[in-house]
Amino acid sequence: MTGPIARRRGRPPRAESADTRERILGAAREEFSERGYEKTSVRGIAKAAGVDPALVHHYFGTKEQVFEAAIEVAAGPVLNGPTAVAEGPPDEVGERLTRFMFGVWENPATRTPLLAIVRSAVNNETAAAVFRRLVVSQLLGRIAARLDLPDAELRAELAAAQLVGCAMLRYVIKVEPLASADLEQVVARVAPVVQAHLTGP
Amino acid sequence: MTGPIARRRGRPPRAESADTRERILGAAREEFSERGYEKTSVRGIAKAAGVDPALVHHYFGTKEQVFEAAIEVAAGPVLNGPTAVAEGPPDEVGERLTRFMFGVWENPATRTPLLAIVRSAVNNETAAAVFRRLVVSQLLGRIAARLDLPDAELRAELAAAQLVGCAMLRYVIKVEPLASADLEQVVARVAPVVQAHLTGP
Repeated sequence: MTGPIARRRGRPPRAESADTRERILGAAREEFSERGYEKTSVRGIAKAAGVDPALVHHYFGTKEQVFEAAIEVAAGPVLNGPTAVAEGPPDEVGERLTRFMFGVWENPATRTPLLAIVRSAVNNETAAAVFRRLVVSQLLGRIAARLDLPDAELRAELAAAQLVGCAMLRYVIKVEPLASADLEQVVARVAPVVQAHLTGP
Repeated sequence: MTGPIARRRGRPPRAESADTRERILGAAREEFSERGYEKTSVRGIAKAAGVDPALVHHYFGTKEQVFEAAIEVAAGPVLNGPTAVAEGPPDEVGERLTRFMFGVWENPATRTPLLAIVRSAVNNETAAAVFRRLVVSQLLGRIAARLDLPDAELRAELAAAQLVGCAMLRYVIKVEPLASADLEQVVARVAPVVQAHLTGP
């Protein structure tokens, strides 16, 4: 039952379904990245994963739910990073959040799925709703919870606005000189602003 | 020659071509707004304007050039506003730029074409290039020119990043509480940041 041949012949259903689930998620991530939310279909994802469309619905439900699951996997580092960002000295949270966000965008492995999420969220209301739920509740919510200020949520969003705008101009629209500016120089200018939004008067 | 019937029978060629040009631009703005840059075609614009596609090429050239012309018309208030923004007391330029940008986004008449430009620029490299040329050179260039600092361009872009991010989260992705926050409260928090980017140490 545990040898490779036995497993290939008769894998337990739970492992089998985990494999299929992952294959569908991988295909979904590819499809959403390449085509964007609107042009992607459950049928197309199923075809790319080599499974029946009914199986995609069985594991995930609607297209919106597949998208949300694909984002949760793709944006794992983005969504789980803030735990470390929120911890540590409060007077350095601005720099930690700034370095975390730029780190995610500088890394091609995380930039590509993030770009797909941004593109989908800008173009489609359903994708925007998923973005709001995941990024805002999970990412900003965790930071706001640590601030312990009555307007913590608005503060976290204005700080995020500075970072989202930097990502848009530097990585998406590629405006010069910002797109080619030295990262440390950019961090040195942006981190105090993020800090001021989060903990300033 | 000046009565309505005479005009309908024999309008001077110059007025005729100005009318046609404007009808094409109006159709282009509609098509780009509804479909985005990639899905819009010169053929589709011509059809919506009730003219031959050759006439669109004759007046504007390529699809990219039609897009640029449509943006220049749609974003007229955005592109020409900064002249007033750049003038006036330098220690209030942050508030003027912030109020100007939010004013443009709060007004549905300018928000709709702006949203189309942002969507196109995020999704398509050609549209992004047009965005860079128009918004960055014209809008930010004029502000940077007034700053008279060696890193004026980077300063203007980081200030713009704060505003672009606010627009993305408040008007495009509609993140709460920022999306429903009182405008004056948002301006009061954002203007000092924009000012600090532009003229701070």
